Amino acid sequence: MEQLDINCDMGESFGRYKLGMDEEVIRLISSANVGCGFHGGDPHVMRKTVALAKENGVGVGAHPGLPDLLGFGRRKMDITPQELEDFFVYQIGALRAFCDAAGVKLQHVKAHGVLSGMAEKDEKIAEAICRAISTLDKDIKWLTYSGTKTRPIAESMGLRVVEECYADRAYNADLLLVARKQAGAVIKDVAELQRRVLQLVKKGTITTIDGQVLDMSCQSICVHGDTPGALDMVRKIRSALEENNVEITPLRSFLG
Amino acid sequence: MEQLDINCDMGESFGRYKLGMDEEVIRLISSANVGCGFHGGDPHVMRKTVALAKENGVGVGAHPGLPDLLGFGRRKMDITPQELEDFFVYQIGALRAFCDAAGVKLQHVKAHGVLSGMAEKDEKIAEAICRAISTLDKDIKWLTYSGTKTRPIAESMGLRVVEECYADRAYNADLLLVARKQAGAVIKDVAELQRRVLQLVKKGTITTIDGQVLDMSCQSICVHGDTPGALDMVRKIRSALEENNVEITPLRSFLG
Amino acid sequence: MEQLDINCDMGESFGRYKLGMDEEVIRLISSANVGCGFHGGDPHVMRKTVALAKENGVGVGAHPGLPDLLGFGRRKMDITPQELEDFFVYQIGALRAFCDAAGVKLQHVKAHGVLSGMAEKDEKIAEAICRAISTLDKDIKWLTYSGTKTRPIAESMGLRVVEECYADRAYNADLLLVARKQAGAVIKDVAELQRRVLQLVKKGTITTIDGQVLDMSCQSICVHGDTPGALDMVRKIRSALEENNVEITPLRSFLG
Amino acid sequence: MEQLDINCDMGESFGRYKLGMDEEVIRLISSANVGCGFHGGDPHVMRKTVALAKENGVGVGAHPGLPDLLGFGRRKMDITPQELEDFFVYQIGALRAFCDAAGVKLQHVKAHGVLSGMAEKDEKIAEAICRAISTLDKDIKWLTYSGTKTRPIAESMGLRVVEECYADRAYNADLLLVARKQAGAVIKDVAELQRRVLQLVKKGTITTIDGQVLDMSCQSICVHGDTPGALDMVRKIRSALEENNVEITPLRSFLG
Repeated sequence: MEQLDINCDMGESFGRYKLGMDEEVIRLISSANVGCGFHGGDPHVMRKTVALAKENGVGVGAHPGLPDLLGFGRRKMDITPQELEDFFVYQIGALRAFCDAAGVKLQHVKAHGVLSGMAEKDEKIAEAICRAISTLDKDIKWLTYSGTKTRPIAESMGLRVVEECYADRAYNADLLLVARKQAGAVIKDVAELQRRVLQLVKKGTITTIDGQVLDMSCQSICVHGDTPGALDMVRKIRSALEENNVEITPLRSFLG
Repeated sequence: MEQLDINCDMGESFGRYKLGMDEEVIRLISSANVGCGFHGGDPHVMRKTVALAKENGVGVGAHPGLPDLLGFGRRKMDITPQELEDFFVYQIGALRAFCDAAGVKLQHVKAHGVLSGMAEKDEKIAEAICRAISTLDKDIKWLTYSGTKTRPIAESMGLRVVEECYADRAYNADLLLVARKQAGAVIKDVAELQRRVLQLVKKGTITTIDGQVLDMSCQSICVHGDTPGALDMVRKIRSALEENNVEITPLRSFLG
Repeated sequence: MEQLDINCDMGESFGRYKLGMDEEVIRLISSANVGCGFHGGDPHVMRKTVALAKENGVGVGAHPGLPDLLGFGRRKMDITPQELEDFFVYQIGALRAFCDAAGVKLQHVKAHGVLSGMAEKDEKIAEAICRAISTLDKDIKWLTYSGTKTRPIAESMGLRVVEECYADRAYNADLLLVARKQAGAVIKDVAELQRRVLQLVKKGTITTIDGQVLDMSCQSICVHGDTPGALDMVRKIRSALEENNVEITPLRSFLG
Repeated sequence: MEQLDINCDMGESFGRYKLGMDEEVIRLISSANVGCGFHGGDPHVMRKTVALAKENGVGVGAHPGLPDLLGFGRRKMDITPQELEDFFVYQIGALRAFCDAAGVKLQHVKAHGVLSGMAEKDEKIAEAICRAISTLDKDIKWLTYSGTKTRPIAESMGLRVVEECYADRAYNADLLLVARKQAGAVIKDVAELQRRVLQLVKKGTITTIDGQVLDMSCQSICVHGDTPGALDMVRKIRSALEENNVEITPLRSFLG
């Protein structure tokens, strides 16, 4: 029986501002990437989101971002690797404290917004992220793109890389995401989505936008929980997986 | 040989803004209260301040404040105990992560600005602070006013209270600080300062502003490091203590 | 034919965070209180909200708040009158610039959150608000509670006070709002709401929660636009007013 | 008799954090670039800085920056031209309100930190800045680099460009600043500084780092006021100018 993790960003509300349907999507996933206050999330939201994950048996991950609440951490900023490392130590430490308070172990870290992409392009950024994580606890997993170039960096620091794919996004032949503005970048057909996820987990391959079937390693599927439509899609991915004997379970349960 | 801790707020610089003479005062004290980013301090300053403390054998404390950088955490805000507890878990967790990264153990927590006073007046606020600390690690000491009313609350949660006195401030007969605006509130005469500190550590008493000699328990003296004059005063307090065989040493070294 | 203004808070979204149904409610009201970035709103939202108001012939007001985005400006903070005056000059000036850029005249100012209440209780706070407005432009109206104690202060500075009532809230015999936690504080019955608004505009009276009919002066009704239910209520208030020959029109059109 | 403006950044303190020696340098300059709260400055500092400029007969300029207090507006951020325009309208509007309150006319705008450089490289950024200024008031001058490429953009919107040079910086043959890390980038010899400033104002030329004498148009010299040494240098530049019959006077007094 195969095992697969489903991860989703959550805990990105801030003060009076609500984002996402965390209470609903939490029941459908196995790992939560929790905002840490820089791009989204606040201390109260962090506490509540950790509690929500715990109640639902969902693995908790830190989802640190750039210090740009107004831009939701989506704008590239010219920061040094040392600055980024400090931002990550701070945010991961803060979230880990809420985990400690709730009696939950921090399972993973996933960089928010532009940061995963920046890490792929700039080795120094990747090193900064991996150093922040490994310095705190080498048992914390680094959740990032399938096929990531950062793997040797992470592994040289004793970190375990977990590879994720986007269920609803088309991939190019280089195994990078098709840019959103391009036709076909986002897959909306439910049957196709189900087929793709099953292909990924059962055969370890993906069909690229130009029709090639390529190997793709994936331990976690990334989904969204911000609209009723998104929730419905997750439900259908889940049911396809369950009907095909794939166990949906947090990373920590099947990775060392 | 008596033992005494000397504590000082530091790590309250922010980005381009420098506050305090941390590099100088660190050599004169034994415990540092490090800003955690809400009222002052930022992730880079936190990393550097922890490193500075480590190099100088100084105990590291978290110094969490209200989320009011503009007001430097000195303005009372109408927050709930739960909100305060979350602010503390977040900030203490962030600083503890920098301690972990540096291989240093977080020694204590001291609330910033208006918060220690708020805790004395409102049991729910005191409980929130103590809950945040004890929930993370009962070995972390709670550094607060000598004679604090919060002692039973802290102890009921298994926390150790450490009592501090202000070397340069006069006390009323109720063992509370004389308000700054009142004449004689701040003691500037060096010989008197030295006398008072020795009296405190040798006899366990303080002479109040109206001339009474009262018992006062004190394991740590709070000093300032923001001006050359302040530094000089600390030097003179130190030398008086050393000449009288008082060992100046971090809290952790003489408290359980 | 009577004239009445209907005002609503809007422009309180921030970055990725959306608040309120501004595009819908703007068609139902005659004056908009626009967030200025401290408690809610950001420069982009301000530009768009001013444009939206202009398109719909709605008067634009500044809605400045305390510098507490996390608390949405709803937490009392211990600020000095001078600090508050500076906060208001800053925020009103920023919004006025967007009005200038759009070719719209800033019509009014309404203090956000806890501030109107603080102004009623503390003359110095009221003075600070009125000084900020009158110093910028004495033609800008000060929109606040009906029966406000701040009227003499405002008028002594040459400011025009505009009185607002909450359509959906019950009033005590002292003409202050019934506290939300008390039974009957919020009026949900549409027919009663319609009756109350008509009574207010036609007879200038309000029926208090204990059944007294008292005089109440009101040039503007405050409504909410944050839920579909709220929008529906505004529609029904509007239709009752229109069927009874009350013209709904911005403050500026019927006040000097 | 020639006329020259001397400008200096100021009003960049924030809350408890003091930056620069504004009270001293204000007596030596003729135009002040005042922080507007995004990269530095706060509403209280803005009010005080405008008052200080007024008392000293110094022209007031807005000095808007990127929304990055932690990075002091010095980090490039990936923002759209529309976002930048909104940031400028907001900040200029806020400062203008303090000018209005003080009975002073806003004289100029100078973009902070990385922004002037971004405007030289990206026409859309230059347009955004010029649009923000011209939309508010075409009488406000746009203070930027001598030889700026943005001149046609500014002039097409009816804006007047004022050109500044850095007194203490060497220039390359392309009339751009020699990068700080390069030897000879910063000129520290007082006599040479005096010679260069006089050459600039009397002959309209600059001697580049490789010894060429090139035309350079300059109506304002940019100086610094953050250290006693910087102040001293400004004093010596002033005295050289005065001894050579150059009148130091705000932009507004000799430009249309």
